[in-house]
Order: sequence, then structure tokens, then C-alpha cells
Amino acid sequence: MIIQLEKDLSSDKKKGIIEKVNSLKYKTTEVKTQKGDYIIGIGKSDFDIREVGQMPGIEDIHIVSDDNKLVSRKWKVKPTTIDLGDGVTIEEGSMAIMAGPCSIEGEEQIEKTIAHLKANNIKIMRGGVYKPRSSPYSFRGLGIEGLKTWYKLAREAGIKIITEVMQVSQIEEMYDYVDIYQVGARNTQNFNLLDELGKVDKPVLIKRGISGTIDELLGSAEYVFSAGNENLMLCERGIRTYERASRNTMDINAIAILKEKSHLPVIADPSHGIGLRDHVEPVALACVMAGADGIIYEAHELPDEAWSDGQQTLNFRQSEKLIDKIRKVFELRESL
Amino acid sequence: MIIQLEKDLSSDKKKGIIEKVNSLKYKTTEVKTQKGDYIIGIGKSDFDIREVGQMPGIEDIHIVSDDNKLVSRKWKVKPTTIDLGDGVTIEEGSMAIMAGPCSIEGEEQIEKTIAHLKANNIKIMRGGVYKPRSSPYSFRGLGIEGLKTWYKLAREAGIKIITEVMQVSQIEEMYDYVDIYQVGARNTQNFNLLDELGKVDKPVLIKRGISGTIDELLGSAEYVFSAGNENLMLCERGIRTYERASRNTMDINAIAILKEKSHLPVIADPSHGIGLRDHVEPVALACVMAGADGIIYEAHELPDEAWSDGQQTLNFRQSEKLIDKIRKVFELRESL
Amino acid sequence: MIIQLEKDLSSDKKKGIIEKVNSLKYKTTEVKTQKGDYIIGIGKSDFDIREVGQMPGIEDIHIVSDDNKLVSRKWKVKPTTIDLGDGVTIEEGSMAIMAGPCSIEGEEQIEKTIAHLKANNIKIMRGGVYKPRSSPYSFRGLGIEGLKTWYKLAREAGIKIITEVMQVSQIEEMYDYVDIYQVGARNTQNFNLLDELGKVDKPVLIKRGISGTIDELLGSAEYVFSAGNENLMLCERGIRTYERASRNTMDINAIAILKEKSHLPVIADPSHGIGLRDHVEPVALACVMAGADGIIYEAHELPDEAWSDGQQTLNFRQSEKLIDKIRKVFELRESL
Amino acid sequence: MIIQLEKDLSSDKKKGIIEKVNSLKYKTTEVKTQKGDYIIGIGKSDFDIREVGQMPGIEDIHIVSDDNKLVSRKWKVKPTTIDLGDGVTIEEGSMAIMAGPCSIEGEEQIEKTIAHLKANNIKIMRGGVYKPRSSPYSFRGLGIEGLKTWYKLAREAGIKIITEVMQVSQIEEMYDYVDIYQVGARNTQNFNLLDELGKVDKPVLIKRGISGTIDELLGSAEYVFSAGNENLMLCERGIRTYERASRNTMDINAIAILKEKSHLPVIADPSHGIGLRDHVEPVALACVMAGADGIIYEAHELPDEAWSDGQQTLNFRQSEKLIDKIRKVFELRESL
Repeated sequence: MIIQLEKDLSSDKKKGIIEKVNSLKYKTTEVKTQKGDYIIGIGKSDFDIREVGQMPGIEDIHIVSDDNKLVSRKWKVKPTTIDLGDGVTIEEGSMAIMAGPCSIEGEEQIEKTIAHLKANNIKIMRGGVYKPRSSPYSFRGLGIEGLKTWYKLAREAGIKIITEVMQVSQIEEMYDYVDIYQVGARNTQNFNLLDELGKVDKPVLIKRGISGTIDELLGSAEYVFSAGNENLMLCERGIRTYERASRNTMDINAIAILKEKSHLPVIADPSHGIGLRDHVEPVALACVMAGADGIIYEAHELPDEAWSDGQQTLNFRQSEKLIDKIRKVFELRESL
Repeated sequence: MIIQLEKDLSSDKKKGIIEKVNSLKYKTTEVKTQKGDYIIGIGKSDFDIREVGQMPGIEDIHIVSDDNKLVSRKWKVKPTTIDLGDGVTIEEGSMAIMAGPCSIEGEEQIEKTIAHLKANNIKIMRGGVYKPRSSPYSFRGLGIEGLKTWYKLAREAGIKIITEVMQVSQIEEMYDYVDIYQVGARNTQNFNLLDELGKVDKPVLIKRGISGTIDELLGSAEYVFSAGNENLMLCERGIRTYERASRNTMDINAIAILKEKSHLPVIADPSHGIGLRDHVEPVALACVMAGADGIIYEAHELPDEAWSDGQQTLNFRQSEKLIDKIRKVFELRESL
Repeated sequence: MIIQLEKDLSSDKKKGIIEKVNSLKYKTTEVKTQKGDYIIGIGKSDFDIREVGQMPGIEDIHIVSDDNKLVSRKWKVKPTTIDLGDGVTIEEGSMAIMAGPCSIEGEEQIEKTIAHLKANNIKIMRGGVYKPRSSPYSFRGLGIEGLKTWYKLAREAGIKIITEVMQVSQIEEMYDYVDIYQVGARNTQNFNLLDELGKVDKPVLIKRGISGTIDELLGSAEYVFSAGNENLMLCERGIRTYERASRNTMDINAIAILKEKSHLPVIADPSHGIGLRDHVEPVALACVMAGADGIIYEAHELPDEAWSDGQQTLNFRQSEKLIDKIRKVFELRESL
Repeated sequence: MIIQLEKDLSSDKKKGIIEKVNSLKYKTTEVKTQKGDYIIGIGKSDFDIREVGQMPGIEDIHIVSDDNKLVSRKWKVKPTTIDLGDGVTIEEGSMAIMAGPCSIEGEEQIEKTIAHLKANNIKIMRGGVYKPRSSPYSFRGLGIEGLKTWYKLAREAGIKIITEVMQVSQIEEMYDYVDIYQVGARNTQNFNLLDELGKVDKPVLIKRGISGTIDELLGSAEYVFSAGNENLMLCERGIRTYERASRNTMDINAIAILKEKSHLPVIADPSHGIGLRDHVEPVALACVMAGADGIIYEAHELPDEAWSDGQQTLNFRQSEKLIDKIRKVFELRESL
């Protein structure tokens, strides 16, 4: 059960509610986010919801059978809007496009990418400054200095930044220079990182684990939410299967299922989902039609010279065509 | 290499060509289909293509590096059209819709389904009379008598029939009553069945194996083609993965990849691909956007009373809406 | 429920029993094998087992909750013994070893293999004369003539034959020349083949599907049993996963689970299970320790010249060492 | 390539070697561990190994084609020994057994477990004080206070401790109270954690990722090694597949392959590998036979009352029998 508390509830009243819930054999967790105060009750026994609901200090109470409660659509019918400021939002009913290189490589590359985005009216740029690499000898990103350069150029251009955070100690360091923290597929179940991101007042996009289940992705979001941060997005980026013709298997089903189960925006990453440049477009458009609220993909002026992920990166001409098509497909979807 | 021979080539000339190819250390296989005569050469050594190409009796010669040669787009740029007669075709550039119940249950059910299809201008009806079931105690289908009833009603209504063939002995028995033989996911690598279907002059739709690779699906089509039957379609129907929130994982990537690799029409089956009635629509529309040439799905007047697969079957109202949306999405796709 | 009937029960009495079971809302299937007569009841309602059990003509009655009833250990505590004649048996408590090439290649190869087996006191030779190949252009086996040659040489040497049957029409053709029919991993759910093998009075070994579940393997065995043939073995041969360092992932868990769930002998195939010659030995020994009743593996005088599967085939020296170790490990296992 | 440097090499000489290697178009990384100094060269061009090998200051040079070089057996034929002090070692040729509960629950539980271990001459106790849980509302472990209590009791009894570290900030906190840091399956690719563990002078056991490949596991070990810590163990604990009859699929192949590829000890975790108490024993014994250097499993006085993982935890009587059998199987393995 989720109990939404009135604002600034006295600790006495809160204590009374907790005791009441505990008396029903429900374990309680107090959750305080930037948007509200909640008590989460975990248990199985039947009880009369009015017994609790009528207590003073309670704004609303919801019985949510899902394991992951706060991110469930069952209690929060109104979908979550992510507000990045300056009129940039990510939400159901609009189509967010985020594009940019796999790795941030330097000033010139950033400038060219920004110019490309502005020419196509894209407001959010993706890029990595901390890169998780399976070999310790690979390029691991430009780090915080790269981020600062990027931030300066992006702010001047009115572009928002989404980039991956890999560990707790980076959260604070990056804070002034990011608009969205991205949790990568290898960190989806890095629970300490999730806990700490719950304490931040900036949006977080969580990628599905490399072979994570849909329920695990929701559980990871529940971590961040219950630690205090409601500004969350879920990202389907393909899963690991036996098939070798593509880098991953884009789980189109997951987009439809996540949209039904959760009130959080669902973003699709077709670049990692298929891993083959020539097929990013049809997969991206399929994701839009399956119900995604946004698309994040890799674009670079010269993909074959990109420092990483070149094989799945679009050049600017391909990117421009994709943006146009995404918008047309989204328009049709909304009209159906 | 694929050598297309002139029609009615003398056996002497053919023998000469084969000897020439063998002398280049290529193993040869003669292929005779309803549409043409071919020699397939399998080998690795380099040679001057003109050496062979200039021999008398050769219409054309193609170097095809793919393992599966006859089904490859590398030699046959013009995509394959399946002609079912009466103006019904399945091909790139149009959108084939095939709908109907999982199992054929009897006359009344067939009539109602046909009425639904005709009301929506759908020309092809799916349904099973031989059902592969993992338990020997489950309903295994109405068999040939069910097919005959179905055929009679369908012919009167101008509706074409696609249905699964499970074993060699059924091919002839079913011949007069089917328009498309379907090879099910459990039989994708039933090579004897594929060989025999190669000798038939009716179209064949091959479903991807339960955990078959894209290359294995192409290999299965190569079996049928090389045994004589070019009237082939490939069908993506979801693969088995660790994810349990859906029945299968619809491999949207496979649609894009199959369209690139092969000249054969690619059909998508969203009903099996996700296995959840409420999500068949978004997955179907995603498949259209990914490039599918057709959609096959399960529809029934009363899905909850269907003898099998009810949980993934649309009712007629849902089916009608889906048909309308498929057509609109396809129209947009073609215009992009 | 499984009802074991008395021998030569009158059809009247049998009819009475069936009516009684149906009246309890259980669907019935009559099963007649070479060893006994059964009625299988499928249903869910509770009833007093004595109501049925006391009826005349019933030898025993068992409530079996498993989906696959006849192959379940829950009713048949005594494990199944496969008797191949001449004192050769496969059963719990002994260790059956079956070895030989992937493909039968000709007289000389057969003779050398037989000599190797006899020198090591191995009684069962494996080998393929019908080969399922993913490409139609690959070698598909020597066929029935190869089998006849093999049979002649094997009989002279007192060696039993296990070989794959790929389709219904081969069953009769092969009948006089095989001791065990093998159902390959691509045919585990070829239900028509399973049905027909149920009518034969020779043992059948069923390989787990390429990505078949344990329950599906038991379901396939239930097909053969319920169609009349109790002489069955199950074979774990590795499953398809995302891991690419080995050909398949040997599911050692499956051996333990199958032994618990079923009364049928469980055979392990380490050659396909890992697919790497150098590691066949440790995997084979692990399978013995996990509880396998037999090991089937590939051996060839000159693996690098084998017509198929050379990379996972042991030479005779390696094979000899493996046999010795299998026996020692089995001896220890039985003593623990 | 791996260049082993002489101890206390002057920075001038080292610089000369690096310049030489760079001139061959190899990228260099300097590695300094507790045991030695190395230069790792990553590149592809051919060169005469003597050109480099004869330079002053070089102890040895090895061409290692594997991606993961320092953990490869190709340069370090002598396998790695982990020395825990007090005569407790983990290494090829002996059998390390580590047992204990999933979660540390309190003093009494620790004492009973220690008594059980001592009675069976087991020197290493496992247990979790930081528990990665997919739901934020689940018990997350007793934390550092639980570890301190455990440490006090274990030291008195002469028992070594292995326990999971989940984040960088815990490394120092835990340092005085652990003998082996365990990296869990959800953190196998938490590269920052791996980097930091490279700076510690205590052994690290790395579990394979939930669906990690064998190469990724070696890559994770390469991270720790190249950051300075050679005291590493690899742990196979089952992978995620489609099979639902067991919690994971124990990859017995991986044990054989890891032993071939790496000089590091390989530990098997049958508890997580199958996840079913009744089958932990056969899987454990199979892992010994496949070549594991140690077994880690879950044991608890009253598994059904354990705070976590009870369904896969042995009681002490089962544990005692398993220990005895592991030793007998290991003894046989070494004698073969």
C-alpha cells in the first residue's frame, strides 16, 4: 500500500499512522521525495482500507499489488512529467529526442554536434565522459574536464545534457554540469548508486540491465524513487540473447509493457538495441509506434572515426532524416 | 555462386558447366524450381567470373558470399512476389494481413471469422487444424475434416487459407485445401518436411524456430528453395529468452535484418511475439514500421472461449481497429 | 491420475472405469504399451481415491500432479531398465557408455571404431547415417545403405547401434538395423515422429531441444510413452545461450532435476554440451558425478579428418582415457 | 604483450622501454602490483620479440594474444596461489571449501555456523552483511556492525571471512574485518569498484555476472590485476537462461574453460548455480570433477528460517555430508 501524507504532517500524527499500519502486519518504509511524503506498507493480510484511510493526515491511500509500488501506474494514473527547464519536458504525449556521440571527444566535436541538433530543433544532447569499458586498456572517457567543456558550449546553445554517471563519488562532481543523470546497463542494479541518486534533485534515466528483466528495471526505479527522487525515466536498450546477427535484441514488447505498468516516461535506445547503423532507423520508428515517449540514439559527424561505437552511430545526414521521420511517425501515432 | 541456366538447356551443356565449376574446386548442386534452373556452387577459391559466365547456356552468374544463397538479396534484387490467385498477392510494397483463430473449432466459428474478415476487406484467413502441443493429452486440432469444411466456406467467400503442416504425409492430403502451407516454429528445422515442401507448387511460410537464429531461418528457406519451391515467406514470431513478462521476445531487429538479407517477403506475428492480448496492437504496428510486408495475428469472436491461445487473441472489435491502424501506419511508412 | 489396469481386462469393465473417471470431471486417455494398460485422467477436482481404486480390474491408481504423468517418478518409483539384449542394459545403478563418430563414413571407419570399442569393453556404438544439417548443401549422411553396412559389422562384433531417425518414413526402413532410435535436438518436438516411435518395440533416446526446457523434454517422452513405448531414455546435450566460448551450455542442473522427476534413464552428451575436444573429458566426468546413467560422446580415429563435428570429437587415445576415468568416477559415485 | 620489469627499475630505463614499445605501434599501460612491475602493450603489428626482450631492465617478455593479458595462463604458467595466512591457501591442486549463510543474522547464528565449520575442518566462512536486493524494501544486511561481530568471533575460532563489498566507500570500512572481498554478480562490471579493489592488498573473489560471458569475467579480473592486485579468484555461479526449473543454469563448461584460459583459482557456487537445496550436492560434486579449485555454498542451522535464500541453503547435516563427499571426489580427481 502507498499512503500519501499531507504536507508538513506532525511527527505525532505520522507515528500514529505507522503504528496503525504495523498493527495490520504491514512493514512500513517512510519515503520523502521532492514532491511528497509517503508511507509504503509491505504485507499480505486483508484489511478494510477505510480503517487507515480515514485517519487524519492522510491525503490518499492506494492498494498496489505490484512489487514495485511507487513507480506503478496503479496508484498514479497521471503520468510523470520530467521538466528540464526552459520549456524542455519529457512526458507521455510528446516525443523527446536525444542524440549525440557515444563518447565526448573534444570541443570541435561538441560544437559540430550542437550545430546539428540546433539545426533540427533537438534540445537534448547525449554523450559519455565516463565510459564503462570491458577492458581496462580501452579509452575510458574525457572525465569531468570533458563534461565542463561540454556544459559550457551546451548552455550557450540552450542544449540540455544527458550523460552517464558510473559511481557515487561522481554524482556531486557532475551535479553542476548535467541535466539528466544516466544509469548505464551495467549499473542498473548498482543499488548504492541508485540510493544516492535518490537524494539528488535532477532527473535520472535508468537503462535496463544487459540481461535485466522488466521487473528488475522497475525495481531499480523504485530504489531511486523511494530514496527521494521522483524524476525518473526508464530506458529499453536491447537485451542479451543467443542471436548474433545484432548486438542486442531490442525488446519491443518491453516498451508496451513498461508503458502499461509504470507512470514513468519510457525512452528507447535503438542504437544499442540493434547495434547496426543501417538498421537504427527502422528500429527507432518501430519503438515510436510501440509507444515510446522518447528516442535516444548515437550520432556523429564522422561515425567511422568515432572513438567508440562507430558501427551503430548515424552520420548527421542520416540523423536528420531520422528526426524528421520520428516526428511524422509520432504524429500519426497520436492521431490513431 | 549461383548460375542461372537458360531454359531447356541440353544435358550436355549443363554437364559441361558443372565440370567447369567443379574444376574450380566448387561443389555443385543442381536446383530446378517452378521458375528456373540453377547450379549452386559451394567453394572458396578465387576465379575469374568471366571464365564461367561466358559459357553457352548461362543466363547469369552471381557471386553470393552468404551461406544461404538462393534466398539472398545479393543475387535477386527484385523482391519475390507470392501470387495466391484472384488478385491476392504478398510482396514488398504492399501490406498483407492474415487473421483468424489459433484453432479451427467448427463451422459456426469459421463463418463468423470469415464474415469479420470480409467486412474488413481481409483476404487471407489463418487457423490451425493440426496443432503442435507440448502435452499429448491436449487438443490436437480437427484435422483434415476440419480443413475441408473450412475450405468449402472460405472458397465460397473468396478467402485464402494459411494453415500449419506438421509432417510429410499431410502435404498431399492437405494440398487441395490450402493456399499457403505454414511451417511452425517447432518444425523450422524439420529438414525432411522442408525438402518435401520444396516439391510442391504452393507457397510456404516458414516461422522462425523457437530459439532459431536469423541465419537458421534463412537456411530453412534455402532448403525449400533448393528443393524446387521459390514461393516462400519468412515469419518472425518472437524468440525464447529469459524474460518472463511476455510469452516470447518479439525480435524487431530480425524484421529489418531479414528484409536486408533476403528477397523473400517478411511477415510478423505479434500474437506469438508478445503473447498478451492488450499489447498485440502496439507490437503489430511496430512491426509494420520496422519493414514487415505482412502481419499475421490471432482473432476470435470470443477469445476467452477459444480452444487455444485465448490470452493472446483479439476479439473482432479489437481486430477491426488493428486492421485500420495497420493500414494507416503502412501508408505512412511508404510515404516516408 | 494414472490407473494401471489388470491384464486382458474386459472392455465392459474398462468402459465402467472410464465412465467413473469421467464422472469425476477427469478427461481420460487410454494407453496401451508393450508392458501394460493404463488410463490417464487429466483434471483438477478433488475426489476420494478409494472410490476409483476399489473398482474391479484396477491394479493400482496413482495421483500424479506433474503435467507429464507416465514419465514421472511419482508413480513409478522403480526406475526403468532398457534391455538391449545379450546382457546389455541401460539403467540407474550402472554406467552406459556409447561412443562413435558423428557421421558414419564407410566400412573402414566402422571397423576401426568397433575395434576401439571392443578393446575398451564398450557395447554401444553411436553414429549418424541421417544427418540434420542447417545448410541443404552439406553432407547429409550415407543413409540406409550406410546403416546396413554398419549393422552387419556391428552384429558380428556384438556391438549395439544407436542412430538418429529424422522422419516417420525412416522408422520402418531402419527397424531391422538399429538397437536404439535417437531423436535429435531439432526433432524433440516433432510430435508426429514421437507418436510413431510410440508404436515401435525398440528403445528410443530423446535429446533435449536446442533450447528446450526440461518440462518440454519430459513432455516429448510422455508422447512416446502414451503412444505405447515405455523403453525411453532422456538425453541432456547442452542448451543454446548467449555464451559464445562454448558451442552450447551444458546444463548440469538438468541431469539432477531429470533424475528426480523421472524414472527414465538420463544420458549426457558432453561432446555437444561443450563442443570443444579438449574439454569433453572434464564435462563428461562432471555429468557422471551429477547423476547421469550414461554418457554418449563422439570418437573418431582421426578427428581432424572426420566428415563432421571434428572439433568436438576425441581420438581413440583420448577416448580410452575417458572411458577409464568415467568408470572410476562412477564407481566412486556409487560408493558415496 | 606483457613485459615483466626488474624490481626497482630506474624511471629512465622504464621510459626507454615504453618508448621502444610505442615505436612498435603498441599502446602501453604501466602496471604496478604488490608482486611486480609490468608494462602491458596493446597492438597488432608484428615485430621481433628479441628487439624488446634484450633491453636492460626486462626480466621477461610474453606475447599474449588474449584480450585479457595479465590474467591469462599464456604468460603465467604457474597458477596463482591465494595465501590467507595461518596456513590457509586457495590454489590449484587443493580444494578450498567456503560455507556459511546467505545473510549474517546475529551472534548466535555466527557461533553455530563457526562450530559447524570447525567440526568439519573448514577454514573459510561466507556470509553477507551488505546484501544486494532487487527491492528497496527487502532486508539489506546488518552492515558494518554485523561484520565486526562476525570478525571477532571468527578470529577467535581461526576462521577466515569472505563477504561481499558493494561499493567503493565500503572497501576501507571493511578492510580490517575481511579476508576476501567478494564482488557480487550484479557488480561484476562495476568498473570503479574493480579499480579500487586493485589498490587493496587483500584477495578478491569475482563472481561472474548474471548473464556475463566468460570473457567479461576475465576482463573484470584484468581490471583488478592491472590496478595492482594479483590476489584474485574467479567464481562461476550460474547464468541466466530461459530455463525456469532452476534458479540459474550452472555453466559447468565455464569451469573447464576458465581453468584453461587463466592462472587464477576457479571457485564454483552450486547454491546459486541451481538454487534448489536438494540438488546442491550433485551440482557441487560435478563442479569438483570439472576442475574447480574450490566450492562456496550456503549452509544454515535452520534453512527454512534463514532471512534470505533459504530454498537453496543446506542444513548442517547436509553440509557435513557434502564436505565429506567433496573431499572424496577431489581426491579421486587428483589421482586420475
